[in-house]
Amino acid sequence: MADIKGQAEANLYSLQRIFTIPESSGATLAQIDAEISTNLDGFLSERIVASEKDLTEIESAFSSPHIPDQPFYVSGYTDFILNHLVAQSVHTAAPGFIGHMTSALPYFMLPLSKIVTALNQNLVKVETSKAFTPLERQVLGMLHGLIYNADDVFYEQWMHNSNHALGAFCSGGTVANITALWAARNHLLGEQAVARQGLYGAMAEKGIKGMAILVSKRGHYSLAKAADLLGIGRDNLIAIDTDDNYRVKVDEMRIKAEELQQQGIAILGIVGLGGATETGSVDDLQALSALSKDIGCHFHVDAAWGGATLFSNKHRNRLKGIELADSVTIDAHKQFYVPMGAGMVLFKDPEQLSSIEHHAEYIIREGSKDLGSHTLEGSRPGMALLVHAGLNIIGRKGYELLIDQGMDKIHYFAGMIKWHKDFELVVEPELNILGYRYAPEWVQAGLAQASAEVAEKVNVCLDRMTQLIQKTQRSDGKTFVSRTRVDAPNYYHQVITVFRVVLANPLTSQKVLGSVLDEQQELAKHKDIQDILAEIKQHLG
Amino acid sequence: MADIKGQAEANLYSLQRIFTIPESSGATLAQIDAEISTNLDGFLSERIVASEKDLTEIESAFSSPHIPDQPFYVSGYTDFILNHLVAQSVHTAAPGFIGHMTSALPYFMLPLSKIVTALNQNLVKVETSKAFTPLERQVLGMLHGLIYNADDVFYEQWMHNSNHALGAFCSGGTVANITALWAARNHLLGEQAVARQGLYGAMAEKGIKGMAILVSKRGHYSLAKAADLLGIGRDNLIAIDTDDNYRVKVDEMRIKAEELQQQGIAILGIVGLGGATETGSVDDLQALSALSKDIGCHFHVDAAWGGATLFSNKHRNRLKGIELADSVTIDAHKQFYVPMGAGMVLFKDPEQLSSIEHHAEYIIREGSKDLGSHTLEGSRPGMALLVHAGLNIIGRKGYELLIDQGMDKIHYFAGMIKWHKDFELVVEPELNILGYRYAPEWVQAGLAQASAEVAEKVNVCLDRMTQLIQKTQRSDGKTFVSRTRVDAPNYYHQVITVFRVVLANPLTSQKVLGSVLDEQQELAKHKDIQDILAEIKQHLG
Repeated sequence: MADIKGQAEANLYSLQRIFTIPESSGATLAQIDAEISTNLDGFLSERIVASEKDLTEIESAFSSPHIPDQPFYVSGYTDFILNHLVAQSVHTAAPGFIGHMTSALPYFMLPLSKIVTALNQNLVKVETSKAFTPLERQVLGMLHGLIYNADDVFYEQWMHNSNHALGAFCSGGTVANITALWAARNHLLGEQAVARQGLYGAMAEKGIKGMAILVSKRGHYSLAKAADLLGIGRDNLIAIDTDDNYRVKVDEMRIKAEELQQQGIAILGIVGLGGATETGSVDDLQALSALSKDIGCHFHVDAAWGGATLFSNKHRNRLKGIELADSVTIDAHKQFYVPMGAGMVLFKDPEQLSSIEHHAEYIIREGSKDLGSHTLEGSRPGMALLVHAGLNIIGRKGYELLIDQGMDKIHYFAGMIKWHKDFELVVEPELNILGYRYAPEWVQAGLAQASAEVAEKVNVCLDRMTQLIQKTQRSDGKTFVSRTRVDAPNYYHQVITVFRVVLANPLTSQKVLGSVLDEQQELAKHKDIQDILAEIKQHLG
Repeated sequence: MADIKGQAEANLYSLQRIFTIPESSGATLAQIDAEISTNLDGFLSERIVASEKDLTEIESAFSSPHIPDQPFYVSGYTDFILNHLVAQSVHTAAPGFIGHMTSALPYFMLPLSKIVTALNQNLVKVETSKAFTPLERQVLGMLHGLIYNADDVFYEQWMHNSNHALGAFCSGGTVANITALWAARNHLLGEQAVARQGLYGAMAEKGIKGMAILVSKRGHYSLAKAADLLGIGRDNLIAIDTDDNYRVKVDEMRIKAEELQQQGIAILGIVGLGGATETGSVDDLQALSALSKDIGCHFHVDAAWGGATLFSNKHRNRLKGIELADSVTIDAHKQFYVPMGAGMVLFKDPEQLSSIEHHAEYIIREGSKDLGSHTLEGSRPGMALLVHAGLNIIGRKGYELLIDQGMDKIHYFAGMIKWHKDFELVVEPELNILGYRYAPEWVQAGLAQASAEVAEKVNVCLDRMTQLIQKTQRSDGKTFVSRTRVDAPNYYHQVITVFRVVLANPLTSQKVLGSVLDEQQELAKHKDIQDILAEIKQHLG
């Protein structure tokens, strides 16, 4: 095999060979390559060990800060990686891994990813991406169409327009949200004023003493990051209370906005959630749009998770009003079933991104079609191909089926939890996300009658229990749910810890869902849990 | 083959199959997959057509804004992609593609990328990345060591420390530079003051009327983007003149800084270039460090390109002083020979990133080892594996050879240009980048004697000529150089257009370099060029 140990010591000529000669087919890495191509599922199930090692133990394989001096065998390195990295990775595609927003991938994403890597295009400029630039512009156009459904004349005018972009393709929803609020901030302060003079100067000039962004308290943490980064300040990302369904209280947002405006605070924008990350709840986007019009501010919708619901004729009405948003974030590495690293932000008005436009001498020159003049990132890989592939191969109908099955499944699971006497459904599913906890029937009965004081004591115990079960279940490695903290309307709005479940993996069967609950019930028999239950009994008297 | 056309129409069960069943080995996509594995070079050379189609023609294949309704054959889609995307992509790995910062990739990067895609980890949190988190922390430690060379006790304390990070892995140098200046801004205004209150409030509280960042006028465009994004304003990114070697004039920077401080402007930071993107020039980092100490500001070094020069015992002294920087940007997708999408920023002091720290309820909780609490991005793929692979398989010695060969080659090419009577070397190489133009001997002789007025007329003609040759050479597709505009010290500091060459691809031979010049000389015979030369003759009298 074309190994390089010793070769670099010998001469440059040998080192050059690793840039041309592929491994012979017998070598470990080539075997893995073939294994992934022919049996991805098998590769993941067999190479990832079920039971979790302690993190400290895993770290011991990655503890040296020293870059090795000499070259090393590719085969030896591959063995190391298989044993210490792959084996200890998380099986994010497993049908029982229902705690985060990852899923199994359609098989064709793998070879197509390889084409992206092999071509190694850089989407910042046409000179290093050529055909990928029109492809990415088309993907942005298609997504724009999915949300805004403008007419053909519109797309003919804007999609490949060298002075504009319908949105920005980026590494993920965080950068997408930042980009949206960046454009909104610059727009508010007058085109390029803030871009050029800075926030302080631009605000002073306009006599603005402060700025605020309003969002549900269930807003994604990337919004706080954006507020920090953009100089708005996290304290000025105003978190508005939610109703019993975890939807933002639009009336409260209106009152707050008016209050702020009276104080001379400019409202930069309001953000609606098209699927809150932790609860899946969707804000009333129509009402938020109306509010944004009254305020005269930017209306952004974070539909990183829920955007794909637009594919479903049955469920797209859950997002109604999204077409009224000035900008929308959608992640392709979520419900478009694309591998990690593909987010997008779309703008209703193609002129909006002009407020963050920038150019350079050697690339992204004015009037070029280079996508880099309208993105936060610089050099970027051709991930857009994978979105293009999904849209073309799976199609609207295929995505619709995927969305619909996730919805059917979440309702089935919610029913199962409700029916089960020892579990409590806390967050009813609106999209394919729900929250629940383990709480034996007598605990639920006791809690229903408890005073606020007693309820709090019991809930603190239940929180510890939920956390313990979640951690043990994770480290056992059979099934996985995540956990988060939510407001519990029926318990004096106390904030409690719940298991969080996301159902997007088409391979997650009803049987798998049953086994998740079975495993949790089994874990509840452990002494630690029983001790907590005994404590709860005391609190409930 | 496991195609899905019609299946989605039929039922969900069939659609699920694309998440498990790989293509049979006879199908097109499987063939491509094998082709890339066994003969990457062949795949690129044969599948990419040499001659460039017009961009409008390429766009016609990507012109529909409509997402197809029905699923489509994987094989049919693959054919489409091969004909319309792959064929019209840029052969960034070609030995004659010496105009941008891409290169051929070591063969092992391909199967390892596939492992990254197959595992589909999300590095934002341990729960979706487990072993990848320690691996990425180790990569950051190794890079920190390459720059700062702290002792083992330091890395033992900080590398896997759950409350800190030695840096941030990100999609590229732009995000790295933004992250560095973000941390510097927040640090300047007092830990979390700006993060919480926003820029206006924090500045008002401190009585700061403005902020500035100082950098060479050859600074990368991402710095202007950072200044905009962070609310500093592009006008407050102060571009300082360079000397005849394109290195920033430190004395001028000092004078400017003092001037600004007297006006009550706070200096947020100064940025040194560890390889300017367009000229490869390296600023006097020691002097800049001393200046930053006198000012009392953050010192960032943008070594996105040049950082890898630290591997070379022979050439690392070009970057001396880099170890004095508070933060350093290095791109792995440049001279670490990793595919697109891998940048890093390292911080000398592990406490520095605390100023941009953030947490959430469901992940990146306080005290967790989740890398997401110190990154601008949220969800991120496991690209760190590819950097880890390069460091381990190629090793310091291997990278040293790669760096040294690039340097040897650039000096050879510079000599060739100087020797050649019809070419003019404008930017002498300092790292492996240079700038030159086509200018027949008599033009150079005339220019040497010309007045500023005449020189300007001639240079404008030469600019048109350089641009024309560059564009034609690109569309002919045999070899490729980029172009940029630089200050010409010997022509009254007029700004002129030059061919820009970057030599990092180990497959670029002396013969290829010769053919680049031959091709340009051949293109100069075209009538359009001859017309420009006739015009120059008139100007020179």
